[in-house]
Amino acid sequence: MLAPISWRVPPRHYGPWELVVSRLTEGLVARGVDVTLFATADSVTSARLEAVCPRPLAEDPTLDAKVWEGLHIGNAFERSRDADILHNHYDFLPLTYSGLVKTPIVMTIHGFSSTKILPVYERYAKRVRYVAISAADRAPRLPYAATIHHGIPFEEYPLGRGEGGYLLSFGRIHPDKGTAEAIDVARHAGLPLVIAGIVHDEAYFAREIAPHVDGERVRYVGSVDRTAGATLLGGAVALVHLVNFAEPFGLAMVEAMATGTPVIATPRGSVPEVVDDGVTGVIVRDPAEAATAVPRAAMLDRAAVRAQACVRFSRERMVDEYLDLYRKILAGEA
Amino acid sequence: MLAPISWRVPPRHYGPWELVVSRLTEGLVARGVDVTLFATADSVTSARLEAVCPRPLAEDPTLDAKVWEGLHIGNAFERSRDADILHNHYDFLPLTYSGLVKTPIVMTIHGFSSTKILPVYERYAKRVRYVAISAADRAPRLPYAATIHHGIPFEEYPLGRGEGGYLLSFGRIHPDKGTAEAIDVARHAGLPLVIAGIVHDEAYFAREIAPHVDGERVRYVGSVDRTAGATLLGGAVALVHLVNFAEPFGLAMVEAMATGTPVIATPRGSVPEVVDDGVTGVIVRDPAEAATAVPRAAMLDRAAVRAQACVRFSRERMVDEYLDLYRKILAGEA
Repeated sequence: MLAPISWRVPPRHYGPWELVVSRLTEGLVARGVDVTLFATADSVTSARLEAVCPRPLAEDPTLDAKVWEGLHIGNAFERSRDADILHNHYDFLPLTYSGLVKTPIVMTIHGFSSTKILPVYERYAKRVRYVAISAADRAPRLPYAATIHHGIPFEEYPLGRGEGGYLLSFGRIHPDKGTAEAIDVARHAGLPLVIAGIVHDEAYFAREIAPHVDGERVRYVGSVDRTAGATLLGGAVALVHLVNFAEPFGLAMVEAMATGTPVIATPRGSVPEVVDDGVTGVIVRDPAEAATAVPRAAMLDRAAVRAQACVRFSRERMVDEYLDLYRKILAGEA
Repeated sequence: MLAPISWRVPPRHYGPWELVVSRLTEGLVARGVDVTLFATADSVTSARLEAVCPRPLAEDPTLDAKVWEGLHIGNAFERSRDADILHNHYDFLPLTYSGLVKTPIVMTIHGFSSTKILPVYERYAKRVRYVAISAADRAPRLPYAATIHHGIPFEEYPLGRGEGGYLLSFGRIHPDKGTAEAIDVARHAGLPLVIAGIVHDEAYFAREIAPHVDGERVRYVGSVDRTAGATLLGGAVALVHLVNFAEPFGLAMVEAMATGTPVIATPRGSVPEVVDDGVTGVIVRDPAEAATAVPRAAMLDRAAVRAQACVRFSRERMVDEYLDLYRKILAGEA
């Protein structure tokens, strides 16, 4: 399992790719699979940890990213001779090493940062089995072995009662994520808004978010760890998720649904695949419509929200699907 | 032969690493060696050219550097199975692919951009045979198979008579290269100065260089191609080469000497290895002393300057030394 090294596995707070790697790895180990995890040296796992990079690149600016990503990827490929499958979660650079080993390679494509990186995926399309994390994120020109939605450990997300009485914006603070739109929705709905997440765009935060933060109608609680996040999610009336980009997979939506909190979202990126409209949330045409959807979302049965999410987005389902893919590859069927 | 792809091989004007690759490659082909050159698609060579990157990265900002460097390096390693030797000139990233192939690998280290890249060299020190381009550029902790000074094709650098009556600053314009110091030296020596090279530091150029350029006492002629460069070098009374850093190898000094033009330099980096003090130039303690050295430099026998440079820095000598190293590696002696 080749993880990114921007953050620890699992991440201390932010780090969605590393979080998925952790959940898949722990799920596989729980099934008795022999897994070696290539990640930062401070990672925590029940798999065998192999590390060359001492600390997360995003937490230590003295580390030269190109140096450590090269060493990290090279090390994983050197050791891959002993593996049945090499599973890459580290963006596109490892593809360029893939022609040099015989080990079958699976790659979960966590997102395309730019269309400029497509030539690498095209070049190695016959060598590597690609997995999309949503139908929405499939690049039309690439062949995929499977689409596997992320799954989460539901035991870490207890059912909440929405007792906080607030709407929630949960995720990095960036125009893409629609944080400012969530502030509008809360104002129109007459409910307080809690914002949680790392500031990804400082200028946007200063201009569009900070002036509205008054500690009452709009509260900013920073980036929270997963335990605090689960509590925060469970206390919300609804998650307001008005992304302004084709998000590859909205993990925050699944986490909210796990705690019984319904999602209000526009049908962009993975939203139509993740939210069951009228069951686990309300899909609205545009942000202007979102405020009017709050009462409908609040009336959804929270236990039913969680139950449906559990059927579709449990870690066990994700692990099953990856195991199935691994078996097909080893049997020469994928 | 794995070349960098920042510039074409050979470069159109600037591109010292690519220039050395071109000269070595053409020299090897001339000796009957079967060479495949991995370089940009617009490269020009008598070797077999293998290219995936369409254009030089430094000439086309729409190309994503990480994408094309990965594709370029991966391609070279994939094809290296058919080679007796893979010779890397592409900085440190290819080292991280080196554990995945069996082909012997030679790497010419053209310079260390930072001490932060040393961990990569240390990790692959047993796998790859390193070549230093000067004794001054050797990293103390690394093992080297050889130190091989660059050589140039003397037929492209005819003997000049210094008839231009100017001092010359030749190289990228940057504080490291001492362009401002050269202006001072020319003023004190009472001679005009010609400056040729790319502007590498815009602020430095605007602040320290441009105000002195009057088209007469100080002339800036931009970046020149190699033919014009050879003429410019041959017309100079002396090359003023007052670098403010430990330059790994001063190619401009060798090119000047080839045209008979002596070098005035401080003993930093490769200078003491390249300049034979009193024969091919004058080594001074500091820039302040450089102006007083101009008459001494001007009195050196230009034919003797060229003759001595030809003994030490011909392309043939460089090719001999690399062939010798290749043979030793194939015989298991290096």
